[in-house]
Amino acid sequence: MMLVTSGAVAFGKQRLRHEILLSQSVRQALHSGQNQLKEMAIPVLEARACAAAGQSGLMALYEAMFTQYSICAAQILVTNLDFHDEQKRRNLNGTLHELLRMNIVPIVNTNDAVVPPAEPNSDLQGVNVISVKDNDSLAARLAVEMKTDLLIVLSDVEGLFDSPPGSDDAKLIDIFYPGDQQSVTFGTKSRVGMGGMEAKVKAALWALQGGTSVVIANGTHPKVSGHVITDIVEGKKVGTFFSEVKPAGPTVEQQGEMARSGGRMLATLEPEQRAEIIYHLADLLTDQRDEILLANKKDMEEAEGRLAAPLLKRLSLSTSKLNSLAIGLRQIAASSQDSVGRVLRRTRIAKNLELEQVTVPIGVLLVIFESRPDCLPQVAALAIASGNGLLLKGGKEATHSNRILHLLAQEALSIHGVKEAIQLVNTREEVEDLCRLDKMIDLIIPRGSSQLVRDIQKAAKGIPVMGHSEGICHMYVDSEASVDKITRLVRDSKCEYPAACNALETLLIHRDLLRTPLFDQIIDMLRVEQVKIHAGPKFASYLTFSPSEVKSLRTEYGDLELCIEVVDSVQEAIDHIHKYGSSHTDVIVTENEETAEFFLQHVDSACVFWNASTRFSDGYRFGLGAEVGISTSRIHARGPVGLEGLLTTKWLLRGQDHVVSDFSEHGSLKYLHENLPVPQRNTN
Amino acid sequence: MMLVTSGAVAFGKQRLRHEILLSQSVRQALHSGQNQLKEMAIPVLEARACAAAGQSGLMALYEAMFTQYSICAAQILVTNLDFHDEQKRRNLNGTLHELLRMNIVPIVNTNDAVVPPAEPNSDLQGVNVISVKDNDSLAARLAVEMKTDLLIVLSDVEGLFDSPPGSDDAKLIDIFYPGDQQSVTFGTKSRVGMGGMEAKVKAALWALQGGTSVVIANGTHPKVSGHVITDIVEGKKVGTFFSEVKPAGPTVEQQGEMARSGGRMLATLEPEQRAEIIYHLADLLTDQRDEILLANKKDMEEAEGRLAAPLLKRLSLSTSKLNSLAIGLRQIAASSQDSVGRVLRRTRIAKNLELEQVTVPIGVLLVIFESRPDCLPQVAALAIASGNGLLLKGGKEATHSNRILHLLAQEALSIHGVKEAIQLVNTREEVEDLCRLDKMIDLIIPRGSSQLVRDIQKAAKGIPVMGHSEGICHMYVDSEASVDKITRLVRDSKCEYPAACNALETLLIHRDLLRTPLFDQIIDMLRVEQVKIHAGPKFASYLTFSPSEVKSLRTEYGDLELCIEVVDSVQEAIDHIHKYGSSHTDVIVTENEETAEFFLQHVDSACVFWNASTRFSDGYRFGLGAEVGISTSRIHARGPVGLEGLLTTKWLLRGQDHVVSDFSEHGSLKYLHENLPVPQRNTN
Repeated sequence: MMLVTSGAVAFGKQRLRHEILLSQSVRQALHSGQNQLKEMAIPVLEARACAAAGQSGLMALYEAMFTQYSICAAQILVTNLDFHDEQKRRNLNGTLHELLRMNIVPIVNTNDAVVPPAEPNSDLQGVNVISVKDNDSLAARLAVEMKTDLLIVLSDVEGLFDSPPGSDDAKLIDIFYPGDQQSVTFGTKSRVGMGGMEAKVKAALWALQGGTSVVIANGTHPKVSGHVITDIVEGKKVGTFFSEVKPAGPTVEQQGEMARSGGRMLATLEPEQRAEIIYHLADLLTDQRDEILLANKKDMEEAEGRLAAPLLKRLSLSTSKLNSLAIGLRQIAASSQDSVGRVLRRTRIAKNLELEQVTVPIGVLLVIFESRPDCLPQVAALAIASGNGLLLKGGKEATHSNRILHLLAQEALSIHGVKEAIQLVNTREEVEDLCRLDKMIDLIIPRGSSQLVRDIQKAAKGIPVMGHSEGICHMYVDSEASVDKITRLVRDSKCEYPAACNALETLLIHRDLLRTPLFDQIIDMLRVEQVKIHAGPKFASYLTFSPSEVKSLRTEYGDLELCIEVVDSVQEAIDHIHKYGSSHTDVIVTENEETAEFFLQHVDSACVFWNASTRFSDGYRFGLGAEVGISTSRIHARGPVGLEGLLTTKWLLRGQDHVVSDFSEHGSLKYLHENLPVPQRNTN
Repeated sequence: MMLVTSGAVAFGKQRLRHEILLSQSVRQALHSGQNQLKEMAIPVLEARACAAAGQSGLMALYEAMFTQYSICAAQILVTNLDFHDEQKRRNLNGTLHELLRMNIVPIVNTNDAVVPPAEPNSDLQGVNVISVKDNDSLAARLAVEMKTDLLIVLSDVEGLFDSPPGSDDAKLIDIFYPGDQQSVTFGTKSRVGMGGMEAKVKAALWALQGGTSVVIANGTHPKVSGHVITDIVEGKKVGTFFSEVKPAGPTVEQQGEMARSGGRMLATLEPEQRAEIIYHLADLLTDQRDEILLANKKDMEEAEGRLAAPLLKRLSLSTSKLNSLAIGLRQIAASSQDSVGRVLRRTRIAKNLELEQVTVPIGVLLVIFESRPDCLPQVAALAIASGNGLLLKGGKEATHSNRILHLLAQEALSIHGVKEAIQLVNTREEVEDLCRLDKMIDLIIPRGSSQLVRDIQKAAKGIPVMGHSEGICHMYVDSEASVDKITRLVRDSKCEYPAACNALETLLIHRDLLRTPLFDQIIDMLRVEQVKIHAGPKFASYLTFSPSEVKSLRTEYGDLELCIEVVDSVQEAIDHIHKYGSSHTDVIVTENEETAEFFLQHVDSACVFWNASTRFSDGYRFGLGAEVGISTSRIHARGPVGLEGLLTTKWLLRGQDHVVSDFSEHGSLKYLHENLPVPQRNTN
């Protein structure tokens, strides 16, 4: 780690200015009193003098800062000559290596005192400054001389842009390849987007030629400056990275464009054509089984010993998994006919002016999934069925499997010339970086653990995320519940698959049922099923010897554990659910229809059931055809989501030469606003 | 500005440790060689010695930092005695005041070298530290002694919580009133949420009694630490503010709770009851006209001379404004009957197991509106019609008007006992603070300028925002456009109300029309209407003398200005719209139905029209009844939004004792998934 620093001139300027003020003030005071002190003109200071005066203060500051971390720093002052003279260069090289060997950080600056005066330059107010580019070229020379791994140039702009900042399409270049000169035109000032960046870019290219990679990034942004260096060293996408090696594939931005335009083409196909693509993909999954399993075997071998057994199981594919995957895809194909272009509303606004609201795809989806490669064809089919462009980001452990499955998806898409609609992101972008591309992505769907969902919801900046974050499901056993039903319902809700988000977490029991045979039956059943019981505070207070009290009534156990609490009435049950629930799925068990309807109407959750297991909360069980997920969001899609969750609408208005001024108070026309019938959803 | 600092011990620890290592290394080296140097145990250091050794380095660091800003700092070391002895206190007071008078920042620390040894404390590894609370009480004493306006205590936690952090309902207390001891229980350790905060809170209360307000905030958060002091001084909601004065009304959190529960009650009313409330509010607006106008007059008088004329106009109410407002409200009431509880989908899942998807309110809306007070009754009616709870945040300039209008809304609500469903936020919370309450608010609707919408979209953390941000609307004039229609359509779209978001901004003309009479007619009309023309690059290249070239093809002029560009085909028009448009409203003018349908299907915008003015893009003109707004978002609601935009859905499942295990492969039941008919939307 070496540091090339500016700041000596600025530091010295403060100091010299102060000195001059003090020396002038005596004279001034004789003439006009103290008050004029502040208004006195400050003479232009000589930059080299400033640098000399500031150097010691600057070094003291670095010393004080580094001392905090027990790191020793050393001062090195050089001039260009030190690099040109072979002997001097060797001396400098030796000194620096010796310092580095001793874990001392060299702080390097130009020895401004012995260089010629600077050309005028307005970088700093009221002082002629040695052009900053000296530091950039110094850093580049030093980086090459010392064969550093990376040169980080911190500036006050984000990096290098492909067109002048402020123009329509100015975009930050993430990675710049010197061979790739089309994207930026150097030299012609008006067409280059580097405002004040020329010197840095020249230095960067020089260092790159010398074998050192370079990053130009913003070091002044107050919100990130604390992290910028560590972020860069960790390989995150910060600023512009200068590299000699151009990766083979497209950038993620290009992939986004391709998904957008491919998706638009997909959306204009006939529903039968989209279904055909999905049927073809289903066939490919079984036809190309051997190749898929071979690729999967590679992933499995590489993961062996590095992944835990349950993860390995999720990663592995088999003939039977592929077969059932193909069956699922055919179901999606069948249910896709009625999705895009469905008319939801028709209105006659005036004679010959008809309005239609039709379903259309949302645009570009980003689906992020963990180890399971079988997610890929399934998600691809959903995107195809709904006419959306798709960016896929899978887990690294499934690289080989994902690659072949993606190729098959593109092969299927190409039968109708829309191969590009589905893109697999293979670049080094972190999930976090993808979540920031709000101009390219319209909806993010995380498929995986609820931890993944929560992380993505946090990372997504301005892009909506569809996914369930928590399922704290309740079942309220009313005083009029039927003895026969209750244990069946509790067992199914809690024990059938306790890790699911629609599994039961809290059982609310009406107080009248305490110490009844029904209550004992429930407890016995839970014992037999080895469900660990946690007592709510009221429940615990009713028992002589109670199970351990809950830490929190708002817990998703996801395991054979259940919280039991006592309530006095259906209203208290509803209040409990509103206070501690996650608005996922809540159930009442009662034979009293009036109580049941009260519960159904008043509980503010995505799914509210009467005498049915919480586990019905599921797209397939709801008969939605393909299941996109279960959404705990309140807008757009709520609860189990079918293909409709991947659709939005647009309004089509067909007129002749209709203008709104004809409908004004004294205009010739009146609004009719007549609702016209729309085709009903197919009934089987 | 005075600074009480810690850090001397830490600073000295580094230094002494280094010294000890050096002195030990000689001895150690004689025994066992250099390699053991690193592993040597460091003896526990005496805190007072550390402080003495560190004090000079710490001060040098402050000096170096403050010098950067030409600010002089002074070192002050005090002990508790300096406050107890009257003479010493007066000395200290005099010194500090003299320093402050000279704009010198006193940096104060305890004179650790002359105090008794500290009790063991584990704040710093490997060193006994003088308990940090000394600095807190020192700061409090100093603040009171110097009669400071504010004491800021920076810690590593966000502030004071009302219950132990990690418990179910732990919430940061924004403002703490010492009189209000219910919310936090001091003393009993397990019930107080101050992990390590006792000393700070005691010091804060002591300072508060002495007449100094106090803020305890997190000074270590890397993302905000650069702003925390300025944010606090600007009165933003950071950390916990200790104040003697308790405001009269409820906190915004309490208002959120009231809106939530009031909204839930509102949602369970019959549609006719909600309509009744709105009709009653409409009546109140005309019945209580005099009181409303009186309140408005107060606002107008206070705003006179401080607001620009157009803003004053928006602020003013009149009898005719109130009358048309009442008419609008009655329309909302009429259209509200069919909103909440509408069945969208019915499915028979199995025998006696029926699923229903019904519309329900979203929950709690936050509506932020600028000067126009007439917004309030309108928004209130929309919330009532859709059964949502509502938080209203109006502009300060309309305080009196908003207050009475809100009272009338609550009066109307109280006829069905749901007065609390609508809350007016009067506390000092900034809009930004409200936008962070993601657990309390489900949807934010900004009503006002597109600048307001953009600001809110930026500020909203995790809460969806419904609003149009930009309307860059296009009209494409095809080669087969009718001469008669085109000028009418362009004039209506551009000139009728150019400030609207659905006004035309870019006219795309097919190349074949250049230099035809039709083209001349358009240009003549634009001249007559005094529309300033900006030429797109291709258009400019076709003309000998062209108007000024556009700066950007992606401009919303919002004024009598229009960009004209030439395209070669309908496909090129579509590409242009996708590249530069904002997906708001785009129109094709042509007599060729096939071209028109191609455009309608392929343009990916919220509204796509054929031979109709862009200005039809409006909830009222679309016949949606009440207009909530125009959404440029792609999910949930898109384009003009009626009451439906304020609704979501829930799933009701009514069974007998249905469990999913009965439907497993070998179970006794099979899914039917039979779509049942749903009632059609009313047709007039």
